[in-house]
Amino acid sequence: MSSIETQIHTMGANARKAALSLSLLSAEQKNEILQAMADGIRAQTSAIIAENAKDLHAADENNLSMAMKDRLRLDEDRIEAIAAGIEKVASLPDPCGEILMDTVRPNGMKLTQIRVPIGTIGIIYESRPNVTSDAAVLCLKSGNATILRGGKEAIHSNRIIAQVLNEAGESAGMPANAIQLIPFTDRESVGIMAGMDKHLDLIIPRGGKGLIETVVSLARMPVIKHYDGICHMFIDADADLDMGVKLVVDAKTQKPSVCNALETILVHEEVAAEFLPMAARAFAEKETELICCPQAQAILEGVATTPATEEDWSTEYLDYKVSIKVINSLKDAVDHINHYGSKHSDAIVTDNQAIADTFLRSIDSACVYHNVSTRFSDGEEFGFGAEIGVSTDKLHARGPMGLKELTSYQYRITGNGQTKA
Amino acid sequence: MSSIETQIHTMGANARKAALSLSLLSAEQKNEILQAMADGIRAQTSAIIAENAKDLHAADENNLSMAMKDRLRLDEDRIEAIAAGIEKVASLPDPCGEILMDTVRPNGMKLTQIRVPIGTIGIIYESRPNVTSDAAVLCLKSGNATILRGGKEAIHSNRIIAQVLNEAGESAGMPANAIQLIPFTDRESVGIMAGMDKHLDLIIPRGGKGLIETVVSLARMPVIKHYDGICHMFIDADADLDMGVKLVVDAKTQKPSVCNALETILVHEEVAAEFLPMAARAFAEKETELICCPQAQAILEGVATTPATEEDWSTEYLDYKVSIKVINSLKDAVDHINHYGSKHSDAIVTDNQAIADTFLRSIDSACVYHNVSTRFSDGEEFGFGAEIGVSTDKLHARGPMGLKELTSYQYRITGNGQTKA
Repeated sequence: MSSIETQIHTMGANARKAALSLSLLSAEQKNEILQAMADGIRAQTSAIIAENAKDLHAADENNLSMAMKDRLRLDEDRIEAIAAGIEKVASLPDPCGEILMDTVRPNGMKLTQIRVPIGTIGIIYESRPNVTSDAAVLCLKSGNATILRGGKEAIHSNRIIAQVLNEAGESAGMPANAIQLIPFTDRESVGIMAGMDKHLDLIIPRGGKGLIETVVSLARMPVIKHYDGICHMFIDADADLDMGVKLVVDAKTQKPSVCNALETILVHEEVAAEFLPMAARAFAEKETELICCPQAQAILEGVATTPATEEDWSTEYLDYKVSIKVINSLKDAVDHINHYGSKHSDAIVTDNQAIADTFLRSIDSACVYHNVSTRFSDGEEFGFGAEIGVSTDKLHARGPMGLKELTSYQYRITGNGQTKA
Repeated sequence: MSSIETQIHTMGANARKAALSLSLLSAEQKNEILQAMADGIRAQTSAIIAENAKDLHAADENNLSMAMKDRLRLDEDRIEAIAAGIEKVASLPDPCGEILMDTVRPNGMKLTQIRVPIGTIGIIYESRPNVTSDAAVLCLKSGNATILRGGKEAIHSNRIIAQVLNEAGESAGMPANAIQLIPFTDRESVGIMAGMDKHLDLIIPRGGKGLIETVVSLARMPVIKHYDGICHMFIDADADLDMGVKLVVDAKTQKPSVCNALETILVHEEVAAEFLPMAARAFAEKETELICCPQAQAILEGVATTPATEEDWSTEYLDYKVSIKVINSLKDAVDHINHYGSKHSDAIVTDNQAIADTFLRSIDSACVYHNVSTRFSDGEEFGFGAEIGVSTDKLHARGPMGLKELTSYQYRITGNGQTKA
C-alpha cells in the first residue's frame, strides 16, 4: 500500500468506529452538536476568510474563470449562510428510529423494521467550499460518519471549515472521526475511496460528469449520483398555450445553470404554428437562443434561430439556449424523452387529463410534471427541508434527496426461544 | 463490439422497451400472464425433463459433485413446485402503484410519490435451473423486464424453462422481451451485462463469492448481493442457558448449508463453564465439530474439539461445524461481530432487556435477533410471500428481499401553471 492508501484506509476504519457511536446518539445530542458547530463557524468567520483568501490567491495565479472564483469565494454573508444552514438542519426531525413496519409472526416472534443510519458515507466534490459543511451536517444529523474529499481549488477553505466543525462538534460530544476531511488532493485518493467498500457504505459524487464517471467506474460500493439534467417540456395539442409560454420561459430562464432547468421543448405539430411564435417573442426578451428542428425553423421564418444537430437533443446547455422540436404524437414525445433525457425532470403542458396521465406513467424519470415548471425538483421545494443532492438512479433514492435518503433500515426480531426446526 | 457484445446490447435495448410496456400493465393482466406461465410449465413437464437430462448427462461427463447434480435435477415434483411457485407469486399483492407520499405544497402543486417498477434487472446465477423461473416471475409481477444469465451446467434446462415462460406469457399478453435468457454461457457475457448501465438498472448476482466479486468489480449499475453469512449467537451472562442450547443447535444444524445458519457462538465467560458442556452434549447428537478458542477448549477438556485459528472467525462453514469463543463483555461481543461478521443475521440470548436493547442497536447487520434463531432471516418467514434474495448492503434493500424491494418510486407533480420565478 502507498502511504496515501494507508492513510485513507485508516480514516475509513476510524469512520466505521465513529459510525457506531453516532448511531447511538439521541436527536437531542445530535442537535446540540450541530448548534455548537453553527456557533463555531460564526466565531471563526475571520479565520475562515483568511484561509479562503489563500484559495482565491491560488485561483488568480491559476487563471480560474470568474464563475469558478465566485463559487470559491467566502465572505461574511456566505459564512453566516453556512451557520444558518447548520441550524436549519438541527431544526429538522431526526429520521432515525422511525418504525417502518411492526408485526408479530405466526410463531410469536415480533418483527420490527426500523430506520437506522447508513453508516459511513464518502462525499467527493469539486470547488464549492460550503459543501464541506452542508454534506457533513446532513450526514451527522442522519447519524452517519463522513469522509470528505473536496477539490484542490478549495483545500484551504475546506480544511478550516472541517477543523472548526470538528473542534466545535467534539466540544459538544461528537464522537472523534465523525467528520474527516482528506487533507490532501492527490487524484489517487478518489480511486482509493472508491475501492474501500469495507469502510464506506456509500459514495456521493457531486461535480462534473468526468468526476462522476470516474467514481462510477471504480466504485465497489453503491454510488448515488446524477450525471446531468436534460429536462424536457412537451406542449401537447390540448395545451393552454399561454400557460405553456409562461412555463417554458420559467423553466429555461429563471436560473439556466441548474440541473432542473429546461433544455428541450417538444411541441405537438397541431399547435406548433401558433405556439412557437408566442414562445419566440417571450424568449427574445430573455435573449435566449432558439436551436430548432427544420419544421420549427420553417414556422419561425424571420426569427433568428440556429439549426439543431442530432447532438443538440442530448446537450445540457446550462445557458440561455433551448432546443425545440416539433413532434407528431404523445408517443413520439415519450420516446424522445426516454431516449435523450437524463431521467431527471420532464413536464407536459396539456388540459387533457387522459393524455397527462399517460405521459406521467410513461416517462421514466425521477420527477414528472403536469402543468408545472421543472424548476421545482429540489429538496426544499418538495418539503424535505434540505437536500444532499439529486439522484437519477432508481435504487434507494430517486429525485431530490433529504435526510431520509441518508438512512437504511434494520430488522429487529425478538422472541422467547423460537426455533425453525 | 464483439458479436456477443452486440447481441447482449440488443437484448438490453429490447428489455428497456419491454419495461415501459410492463409498467403500464394492470395487476390483473400480470396475474393472467403468470397463470398462463404456471399452466405452460405443467403442460411441458416432459419436455423440461428431457432437456434437463442433457444437463445431467453433461454433469456426469464433467464429474460434477453429487450435491451439484442434485441441485441441477428436475423431476415431476420439482417442476410442479416451479408451477406452484408461479401461482403463489400471482396471488401476492402488486406492489406497484402504492402511494408512498401525497401532499399539496404551499404554491398549490400536488406532489405524489408513487411506487413504480425499477425497470430492467439483470440476474446472474449459477447452477439451479428453478432460479430461471423464480427470478423471472418475481420481476414480472413487480413490473420489471429481466435479462437472465444462468450457469453453463444448467443451460439446456434454463433454455426450455425460459422458452415455456415466454410462449405461455406472450399468449396471455406479456410484452415481447419481458423475459430474456442469454442463450450462451461465455464468461464474457457477465462483464458485458455489468457494463451496460444504459440498459440495466440493477444486477442481482446469486452464487458463489467469486461470481459476486466479479460482478461487483465490473458493475456500473447498482448491485444487490450478499457475499456470505457468517452469523453469530451471543450467549450473555444473563441468558436462559437451556434456551441458549436449543437456539444454537437449531441455528447451526437445522439446515447448515444456508446463509442464515449459525457459524460462531460467543459465550460470556461468566456462564461459559456451565453452558459449553451443555451445548457440547447437544451438538454431539448432531455430530457437529466444535472449533474452539483456548478458553473454550480448556472448559471442554475431555470432549473432542478442534483448536480455532484466526481464520476460523471469518469462515462460513455451511457444514456441521461451529466455532466457539469465550468473551468478556457485551462490548467485546459487539466488536467481534461487527468485525468478523457478514452484516447478515446475528443473535443474542439473554433475559436482560437492557443488554438486549444495546446489542440490537449496536450490531451493524441486516437482521438482529433476541432469543430467536437466526434461521428466520428469509422472505417467507418475514411474511413477504416470496424472496428474490438477501441483501447485506445497506442501500435500497437490506435483509430478505420481496416484491417491494424490486420497485423504485417516482415523483408526480401536478398543478395549474406554477412557476419558480
